[in-house]
Amino acid sequence: MPNFPTSIHISEEGPREGFQFEKGPIATARKIELIDALSQTGLDHIQIVSFVNPKAVPGMADAEQVVQGITREKGVAYTGLWLNDKGFERAVATARLAITGSIVLCASDPFLMRNQHRTPEQQAADQHAIIEMYKARGIPVERGGVMAAFGCNFAGDIPVARVLGLVQQQVDIAAEHGVRLKRVMIADTMAWATPLAVKHVVGALQDRFPQLEISLHLHDTRGMGIANAYAGLEMGVRYYDSSVAGLGGCPFAGHKGAAGNVCTEDLVFMCDEMGIETGVDLETLAECARLAEDIVGHPLPGSVMKGGSLKRLRERVAAGT
Amino acid sequence: MPNFPTSIHISEEGPREGFQFEKGPIATARKIELIDALSQTGLDHIQIVSFVNPKAVPGMADAEQVVQGITREKGVAYTGLWLNDKGFERAVATARLAITGSIVLCASDPFLMRNQHRTPEQQAADQHAIIEMYKARGIPVERGGVMAAFGCNFAGDIPVARVLGLVQQQVDIAAEHGVRLKRVMIADTMAWATPLAVKHVVGALQDRFPQLEISLHLHDTRGMGIANAYAGLEMGVRYYDSSVAGLGGCPFAGHKGAAGNVCTEDLVFMCDEMGIETGVDLETLAECARLAEDIVGHPLPGSVMKGGSLKRLRERVAAGT
Repeated sequence: MPNFPTSIHISEEGPREGFQFEKGPIATARKIELIDALSQTGLDHIQIVSFVNPKAVPGMADAEQVVQGITREKGVAYTGLWLNDKGFERAVATARLAITGSIVLCASDPFLMRNQHRTPEQQAADQHAIIEMYKARGIPVERGGVMAAFGCNFAGDIPVARVLGLVQQQVDIAAEHGVRLKRVMIADTMAWATPLAVKHVVGALQDRFPQLEISLHLHDTRGMGIANAYAGLEMGVRYYDSSVAGLGGCPFAGHKGAAGNVCTEDLVFMCDEMGIETGVDLETLAECARLAEDIVGHPLPGSVMKGGSLKRLRERVAAGT
Repeated sequence: MPNFPTSIHISEEGPREGFQFEKGPIATARKIELIDALSQTGLDHIQIVSFVNPKAVPGMADAEQVVQGITREKGVAYTGLWLNDKGFERAVATARLAITGSIVLCASDPFLMRNQHRTPEQQAADQHAIIEMYKARGIPVERGGVMAAFGCNFAGDIPVARVLGLVQQQVDIAAEHGVRLKRVMIADTMAWATPLAVKHVVGALQDRFPQLEISLHLHDTRGMGIANAYAGLEMGVRYYDSSVAGLGGCPFAGHKGAAGNVCTEDLVFMCDEMGIETGVDLETLAECARLAEDIVGHPLPGSVMKGGSLKRLRERVAAGT
């Protein structure tokens, strides 16, 4: 039987993924409402905003107000995303977020150019500068990452060897600055992964970098999200990014119907039913998913919020009603 | 790495599942249009109608007209579903369907009563009568089946031992009539399965009944459909029921949001990408999925029809455009 971890860590990215992706304006108060509701689920890591150019991503123009408006729950790390030092400074200036450092490389040169207007050489140089920036502030850098690790709409299939090479490159960059990475995030940014590909990439990384924990960031555009997460579980992966209700998608991925991350409550349901601890209360989370649908005003892809969990059914059966 | 089969057989059930589930009336001509389109995909087994009481399932009142109206493609087996001898006679009378016999038992007594108004004893007796009915017509009986094999909204969790017992019971019933079953269909009728449960049940069946091929009928109500199918692939299972676009759901399952079978084009996509042959052309099938959405007039759950396959993206990358 599978080599499951006994527990997993979920990084909830629904607010950030969703609010930056949705076309229509969403009132700041409603964003805060969702984040505050998510704070009551047992999730201990919630990415709530991104500090990006409001001209490029109008849905994040109120990032500071959102951060100031939430009621912080003890034990929950609230984080933001930034892509450059300006964004980083905005995040620090809020004085209300958990600030940790990470570096990242993209496995696709054309996507890197479209998404961030950088060449691979510029990107590598950026990572050196980023580590120095964090070090200057005393912020620990523990995480690397590979974007578009399974394939890219503009570069095609990504060989496993390329992913290994990019992780090695990050380990080396970090080492040059006296930093030792502990974890690497592998992102299926454009939903090219299958469960088999997850097993291949994760297995190769575990063989070559046994010192690194792996986290998976899996998009669901082609319906493989939960199966890919399952493959990750079988490989013992303990860190997952996911989005409540399946909120979100990548605004730069260049295709319609870009579904968001794998859905948090569906992932929690699967783990619950397979005896893997998440620390999250599924019923409370499903309520958040329905709230997210109400906030964006259209159906979202999550299944368990519609189909219901098995807990109440089991209770009903046990009660004989 | 996983013990995948080199190829799988898909039984497309979208027309039957979908048209019996949809609330609004669907013109007979449009049902025929979808079935004719599916005939061009490479699918070689399409379940197109059910012969049930039109008062209980109004969407199937035109079953005979649908069967008469389709253009049959060579090499495609068109089938119907029936639940009693009356339905069987209607199917035979069309003289246009592939008629094969099967027996089935339900793992949940309360669901059996709600769904078919039968006790377990009546159901077992029915199977004896059904085999005799098929034998009298010279129709081979090759398939058994277990409904609600993973759990039931009215009976709760179903122990693996119970599924094994029901399969044994069917093997015994068949043997009493000189019939040897070749395959058993395991149905997650109310979407209680997880990939781990699929592995447990399939593994136990393979151990105890090595002579039986297993087919999986997986509902997607809680978003586990494709992950459950993946677990089946890892166990070497070669037969899957699925629904184009994710059409359908069980009208008697007693919950809102009852998603249909696992989505055919998402399953084909996963197999294509993992090197498992299906015989189905994904692009043509995705067109059928979009047609199905047009016919029912509302969004359907399939992902690949929205997210697109990787084939055209790879072609575009290869062409440098």
